[in-house]
Amino acid sequence: MADVVTFGELMLRLTTPGRQRIAQAQHLEMGFGGAEANVAVMIAQLGGSAGFVTRLPANALADRALEELRGLRVDVAGVQRGGDRIGVYYLEQGASQRPGRIIYDRGASAFAEVDPGAFEWGRLLEGARWLHWSGITPALSPEAAELTRHACATARAAGLRVSFDMNYRSKLWGAEEAGRVLRPLMTGVDLCVCGVEEARSVLGVDGESEAEVAEGLQAAYGFQQVAMTRRRAESADRCKWGGVLFESAQHWESAWYDVEIVDRVGAGDGFTGALIYGLLSGKGAGEALEFAVAAGALKHTIVGDYNRVGREEVEALVGGVSGGRVQR
Amino acid sequence: MADVVTFGELMLRLTTPGRQRIAQAQHLEMGFGGAEANVAVMIAQLGGSAGFVTRLPANALADRALEELRGLRVDVAGVQRGGDRIGVYYLEQGASQRPGRIIYDRGASAFAEVDPGAFEWGRLLEGARWLHWSGITPALSPEAAELTRHACATARAAGLRVSFDMNYRSKLWGAEEAGRVLRPLMTGVDLCVCGVEEARSVLGVDGESEAEVAEGLQAAYGFQQVAMTRRRAESADRCKWGGVLFESAQHWESAWYDVEIVDRVGAGDGFTGALIYGLLSGKGAGEALEFAVAAGALKHTIVGDYNRVGREEVEALVGGVSGGRVQR
Amino acid sequence: MADVVTFGELMLRLTTPGRQRIAQAQHLEMGFGGAEANVAVMIAQLGGSAGFVTRLPANALADRALEELRGLRVDVAGVQRGGDRIGVYYLEQGASQRPGRIIYDRGASAFAEVDPGAFEWGRLLEGARWLHWSGITPALSPEAAELTRHACATARAAGLRVSFDMNYRSKLWGAEEAGRVLRPLMTGVDLCVCGVEEARSVLGVDGESEAEVAEGLQAAYGFQQVAMTRRRAESADRCKWGGVLFESAQHWESAWYDVEIVDRVGAGDGFTGALIYGLLSGKGAGEALEFAVAAGALKHTIVGDYNRVGREEVEALVGGVSGGRVQR
Amino acid sequence: MADVVTFGELMLRLTTPGRQRIAQAQHLEMGFGGAEANVAVMIAQLGGSAGFVTRLPANALADRALEELRGLRVDVAGVQRGGDRIGVYYLEQGASQRPGRIIYDRGASAFAEVDPGAFEWGRLLEGARWLHWSGITPALSPEAAELTRHACATARAAGLRVSFDMNYRSKLWGAEEAGRVLRPLMTGVDLCVCGVEEARSVLGVDGESEAEVAEGLQAAYGFQQVAMTRRRAESADRCKWGGVLFESAQHWESAWYDVEIVDRVGAGDGFTGALIYGLLSGKGAGEALEFAVAAGALKHTIVGDYNRVGREEVEALVGGVSGGRVQR
Amino acid sequence: MADVVTFGELMLRLTTPGRQRIAQAQHLEMGFGGAEANVAVMIAQLGGSAGFVTRLPANALADRALEELRGLRVDVAGVQRGGDRIGVYYLEQGASQRPGRIIYDRGASAFAEVDPGAFEWGRLLEGARWLHWSGITPALSPEAAELTRHACATARAAGLRVSFDMNYRSKLWGAEEAGRVLRPLMTGVDLCVCGVEEARSVLGVDGESEAEVAEGLQAAYGFQQVAMTRRRAESADRCKWGGVLFESAQHWESAWYDVEIVDRVGAGDGFTGALIYGLLSGKGAGEALEFAVAAGALKHTIVGDYNRVGREEVEALVGGVSGGRVQR
Amino acid sequence: MADVVTFGELMLRLTTPGRQRIAQAQHLEMGFGGAEANVAVMIAQLGGSAGFVTRLPANALADRALEELRGLRVDVAGVQRGGDRIGVYYLEQGASQRPGRIIYDRGASAFAEVDPGAFEWGRLLEGARWLHWSGITPALSPEAAELTRHACATARAAGLRVSFDMNYRSKLWGAEEAGRVLRPLMTGVDLCVCGVEEARSVLGVDGESEAEVAEGLQAAYGFQQVAMTRRRAESADRCKWGGVLFESAQHWESAWYDVEIVDRVGAGDGFTGALIYGLLSGKGAGEALEFAVAAGALKHTIVGDYNRVGREEVEALVGGVSGGRVQR
Repeated sequence: MADVVTFGELMLRLTTPGRQRIAQAQHLEMGFGGAEANVAVMIAQLGGSAGFVTRLPANALADRALEELRGLRVDVAGVQRGGDRIGVYYLEQGASQRPGRIIYDRGASAFAEVDPGAFEWGRLLEGARWLHWSGITPALSPEAAELTRHACATARAAGLRVSFDMNYRSKLWGAEEAGRVLRPLMTGVDLCVCGVEEARSVLGVDGESEAEVAEGLQAAYGFQQVAMTRRRAESADRCKWGGVLFESAQHWESAWYDVEIVDRVGAGDGFTGALIYGLLSGKGAGEALEFAVAAGALKHTIVGDYNRVGREEVEALVGGVSGGRVQR
Repeated sequence: MADVVTFGELMLRLTTPGRQRIAQAQHLEMGFGGAEANVAVMIAQLGGSAGFVTRLPANALADRALEELRGLRVDVAGVQRGGDRIGVYYLEQGASQRPGRIIYDRGASAFAEVDPGAFEWGRLLEGARWLHWSGITPALSPEAAELTRHACATARAAGLRVSFDMNYRSKLWGAEEAGRVLRPLMTGVDLCVCGVEEARSVLGVDGESEAEVAEGLQAAYGFQQVAMTRRRAESADRCKWGGVLFESAQHWESAWYDVEIVDRVGAGDGFTGALIYGLLSGKGAGEALEFAVAAGALKHTIVGDYNRVGREEVEALVGGVSGGRVQR
Repeated sequence: MADVVTFGELMLRLTTPGRQRIAQAQHLEMGFGGAEANVAVMIAQLGGSAGFVTRLPANALADRALEELRGLRVDVAGVQRGGDRIGVYYLEQGASQRPGRIIYDRGASAFAEVDPGAFEWGRLLEGARWLHWSGITPALSPEAAELTRHACATARAAGLRVSFDMNYRSKLWGAEEAGRVLRPLMTGVDLCVCGVEEARSVLGVDGESEAEVAEGLQAAYGFQQVAMTRRRAESADRCKWGGVLFESAQHWESAWYDVEIVDRVGAGDGFTGALIYGLLSGKGAGEALEFAVAAGALKHTIVGDYNRVGREEVEALVGGVSGGRVQR
Repeated sequence: MADVVTFGELMLRLTTPGRQRIAQAQHLEMGFGGAEANVAVMIAQLGGSAGFVTRLPANALADRALEELRGLRVDVAGVQRGGDRIGVYYLEQGASQRPGRIIYDRGASAFAEVDPGAFEWGRLLEGARWLHWSGITPALSPEAAELTRHACATARAAGLRVSFDMNYRSKLWGAEEAGRVLRPLMTGVDLCVCGVEEARSVLGVDGESEAEVAEGLQAAYGFQQVAMTRRRAESADRCKWGGVLFESAQHWESAWYDVEIVDRVGAGDGFTGALIYGLLSGKGAGEALEFAVAAGALKHTIVGDYNRVGREEVEALVGGVSGGRVQR
Repeated sequence: MADVVTFGELMLRLTTPGRQRIAQAQHLEMGFGGAEANVAVMIAQLGGSAGFVTRLPANALADRALEELRGLRVDVAGVQRGGDRIGVYYLEQGASQRPGRIIYDRGASAFAEVDPGAFEWGRLLEGARWLHWSGITPALSPEAAELTRHACATARAAGLRVSFDMNYRSKLWGAEEAGRVLRPLMTGVDLCVCGVEEARSVLGVDGESEAEVAEGLQAAYGFQQVAMTRRRAESADRCKWGGVLFESAQHWESAWYDVEIVDRVGAGDGFTGALIYGLLSGKGAGEALEFAVAAGALKHTIVGDYNRVGREEVEALVGGVSGGRVQR
Repeated sequence: MADVVTFGELMLRLTTPGRQRIAQAQHLEMGFGGAEANVAVMIAQLGGSAGFVTRLPANALADRALEELRGLRVDVAGVQRGGDRIGVYYLEQGASQRPGRIIYDRGASAFAEVDPGAFEWGRLLEGARWLHWSGITPALSPEAAELTRHACATARAAGLRVSFDMNYRSKLWGAEEAGRVLRPLMTGVDLCVCGVEEARSVLGVDGESEAEVAEGLQAAYGFQQVAMTRRRAESADRCKWGGVLFESAQHWESAWYDVEIVDRVGAGDGFTGALIYGLLSGKGAGEALEFAVAAGALKHTIVGDYNRVGREEVEALVGGVSGGRVQR
């Protein structure tokens, strides 16, 4: 397959248009997304080689989801077809003081009901250099958790680098259960993307500062790198955005961006995908962080889960080209 | 509640716009529908008094579904809230030789997971004169079948008229299983809406003609009236449409309509709702049939599941006012 | 001004999209139209010289109406600004057996409240060769009727040809009142466009056939030419369309077209405009009729009141080029 | 009817989409609204019991307006049908330095031509606890003013609380005439919502500060409470928003919100409706004010006149939940 | 690359929505297409293996065109990037008597300005079994004609089957010039898709019947098979559609379809692609013809150039499943 | 023709909707624009008399472009028809840190391939008082440059005032070539609109400040007035905007506006058009500058190239009416 393999659930995304509420909309914008697919798309959009593994039903909705990923150069040869339904999430974009709202409808999805033994990870990871997964997957079902264990074990055995994005969702499981399932899986994770609050509640690592927490995570779980995004939400339309990366005793803090938000879903995944891409393509840690934060900043301006920006665009932003000019 | 009470599952309906395929659509038109709700709406649109009983989750999608029904004058006071999800169906309209296509995603819906004992049918049917249900409901789950039994028993005990629309869906259950569940429920049904093929495969009544089948059904199950719609499909854009009503030894055949189809989903429900309305409002059998067939013909011209036409419009069509003129 | 001058009310036209009912539409398509403006536009689209006289309020809606007419090469220099509102009509397109429906909201419009003495017809008709008006105008208000009288008298005095399209609207006035107002205005009308039923009820001329009626009209009112459109409505989606022109003892019958309807409003105005254009540009009566009927046929395929087809397109249809090929 | 009854004119609202000008729009978004209906909807959305009284023509536009209100749980049983037209307002949303623009077309509406004696206020207010009206209603016509007098007199006699929102519209009447009509109606008003400038020009009460004006109003007209909204407009896209409530010698000032505006029409009505709901549901004055200001802030984020937010959402904003997070 | 390789120009397709004329449309629907790409897509949609070779500029429009093809499983690895622009065609759909209209804007496109020597056909056709091209390509420019010669020569040398679709466009070149360029290229063509009129004017083969023409073509140019589509245009909305295939002394005539047209562009390409797929996948000549005609019939119901129907759908139509039923 | 004549290329403008990228959009918003047409429209919208000269092909796209200009009161009688294509530009609006992006496709346009001798400038400028052109025109082709020379020479000879807007586009030509072509054309230019950077690179005039540059330009080329717009871009959504005007030893600086951007394309043209209008209609230099800057500020809020604002609106903004209120 590809250099970087991600796996997880892909959902149909249905969004109300033009700041309408679900109660008002006459139609829903159609798209697809999911934390791990978003990472794969980000890498492919930047010019990297990415594959995505999931399970989807054999229907036209899933066909289309795969058509889009294939078009975006994500290798979907490892996707299994079966099960009854594709998970769905309904997104109502917020505005000003009104928060965005998501209704998840992912129960009994084809992926949640996966047969953990049916994926041949050895083959799926053949030739790959990096495995990425997120904390959403083991939260979906015991089968999905088991699948995660298989994937991680295979990756470790094959010497792949492994990254993990916590993505803790309280609607899916409690912090305690999350910790019980996730902690054993942390062994062998090289890069952990995680917030301070999640570190505490799920992984049991507390601290006075981001740095202390990152240090604690490295000490407790052996992560080589810990990355955190920084978001200062001002309203549903605007935030400050940045990130920080810890590696051994060193750390790098990115520039801050004042972001006017078009669609913030997937910004963290854009960050993570660009960080993986940056590190894999030989950027130094600080450079990779700036690149990742810029990619995440740009994601806020893109409609949909997928971060449709190219490497040149990200690098231009890192290099100081502002959005204030039409390029002509 | 209302004069006529119907119960069943209400689904979110998501339709591709403008003859697009699911593979192409950038958005999905949003609506709601379901055989039994469609019947209730038809009755209310005609000026009758109708109530609808179902179970829906406590989320914004279901709120909106109820807001629409309430706006359309359907009494939804008896609706229970709970469960995880509203069923969904995706509709791709056909064209010419390309058939329309539906993807059902109704598994594990709030209604399928209903607690059959949680509905107080005595109270829900208080003051009602008519109960209507369809063969879809008991197909959804054992709990929904049990709920149906309770409703029918209460209606019979309270002396309500009961109508039943077969609506056999092979994706939900086999004909044999349908027969096993439905046959015991036929006792006490006054009006049965049913096709010749369904009569044979599900209810075990065969015949050379519609008339023979209807006679057989009356003999076997004691129905006072048997109604059948007639559809001669010419393409996805066009059909011939009519109906026939049997009562004891008599029967009435309606006029045929050459229909140019905007949206055929719910045409049968429009027929059934208008038939119930007609019979309840004192029309004779033949007159009620013509009224019902005209209502069903008009449904083909209405976007969405619900038949948004009024009594005057149906009567004008029965009376010979063609669609060929703008009314001004 | 222009060769042909028409006058009357221009309305904002608000149409439900995609066969939706008013009860369903989330937006209304915006356009403008009115029988007399439609005629002026038809003539200008065909390459003729046309002007339109009306009264419109000084607001952005009316500004836009005039911007459109000006863009379409209709001379609007004679339009007065004043009054409170532009008339509106809401159009719900029909389908199959469901008739289209119009809600008129034209009471107290700027044009209905016109000051009949405020238009200098001598100046407005200077250099013109033809005046066209319709029976809608005098129906709007006594002032509008008076305005019509002024215009007709001026045109007669100046030796212009005058055409009149009955356009009887029962929602505006009764046939008796219409007759009382219109009959005195028939003097000096050269070309009368009128249906058999209108001839009888409004102008008091009856007959067994179109020919008898036309003859009667010519005898009673001195019309040089009487034109009639022929429409056999099959449904809201389809009709047969043709026309007939009477001149002294002669008459010409056009070909019949089987028309699949996109928007039938304004088809008669397209016919009339093209007939005037044809006659003015030197076509013989029979040729002008065929041209006019073809123009009217094409109008059925055009969204909006205005018939946006050019002379070459109309002539191609007369010449036998079918709609069945993409031109490439 | 309901706990709170409001009455006034309901208009069709036609809005240009996406910041387009009227000169550009190809369609107009369709909705309904009016100050008093907006208040009723706000109360019903918050979970309160509200009814709305008006007069509307018997056409499909008005049918739809009522369907929406009914769907939103507003009791419309007291609405009369008759008259020729529903009032219309055309809204062009502004942007940055370009102000929004409204074209009113409400002359000769069904409500303006109401028969003041035709409403049985005794029956309409039976069981109600609160009557709300605004200064727009008596401005529409002498009949509407007379209707207002009947309603107020009945409410006083029946011991209802009465609230009044000035809503002075200079396009409808002059301040002097407004004062002459409104002052006699102030007797018996318990809660007055009014701006400083309106207090001076219409009610003749001046002062150096909001507090002085409120005191003056209480002294002059016996209001128990005076409420004022505060708006510091920065552009068409952004404002600061707050409110203040005066009661005897006390007053409460709300928090200020920095609002990014989606649609500001109806924000004041959202405030008023939420204030009435808050006071009726037992909140203290200061708490009710904060609740009302938060509801009004959220209205700025909602498309349309009606404030489609629920009590929990308003309380979350009061409680400090920012719009900066997607809720998942 | 793939089993079947096609090459030619890919254009941006911009279509007016909803039967609007170019003069009216506020937006244009965006798609891509071109005779040879359409053939490749058809084959891939049916489950075959297809590649497409072209030259496109390095801009976002062309990126998207390739993203779509890749998503649809067409191998685009052989596409060259360079040149200034992607060709464009503007499509105004017709209706009833009004023909559809295309404005081509393909001059100086990246493909027309191709460097004929820059494509390594040996590598591009490695492993392929079939080359398909059309008469449009050599009409675009001398360079494109030269490129065609290279491709054909390589294919012949490598023993591939070669198919040719005439697609004569009088706007691109005259019949005489077309004949001069095309005739030498006919050597080695196995399957020729061609109309009777084109055979005469371009290839100089005349006859009294389709059969005579086909025989003449086989005799003159050595084609193993000659295929013709049959279209009896009734209006822009409706046609009769069929096809005929000649092979040596035998021929097969397909069933006729009464087609209601959604979008007829690309129907011939759908036919050709399905014919190639059928023949390559081992269907007999008659069976392949029926399959191809059914595929072409379905194309008329699909929006856009690409025929988004699957093998099962085509086979169902061949097998007699009408479009008259929603599949559920 | 008109008081002010402008000439240049008019392009079809195709914009992605709602902040979508070209890769995502399913349709493109359709409009027209070009620097010089935009100036003519601005003048006409303000109430001035403007004409526009160009060359456009004889197709429906160009017909529509002219229909729009005519509707907007721009005299297009001098437009020539001929050539193959209308230039196109694709606009992807930016957001926040993501810059807007334009793809130009204007090669081989009808205007670029103009015959410079075919325009009778004597007749075209008859009665005109002002000629305006921009640096884009001579960049398009040698023929267009030659055409520019003819126009300028005729204008000078006839004593018209001449304005020139640099509009340097690096995608069209290099600064050196621009200088070589443009410098000889500067003779006789009265008003030069130019940025500091363009003055240096193209016209060879450098300076420490705007004032020094303006002084240098006046000295070198004899301009009576030099105008500069000021833009401080903060993001794609927001900028500060102002302007400065130099005349002999005097200069005027406008107020600054904090602009929230809807569509920034054409803001400079709005400025220039309003400046010309202001100067021509007798405003003093400082007043004309404030008027022009306000017009340009408002342009940022208008969708499309054309600045659809009227004189009263511009004057209201100059006079301090903020956008923060809906006008009612």
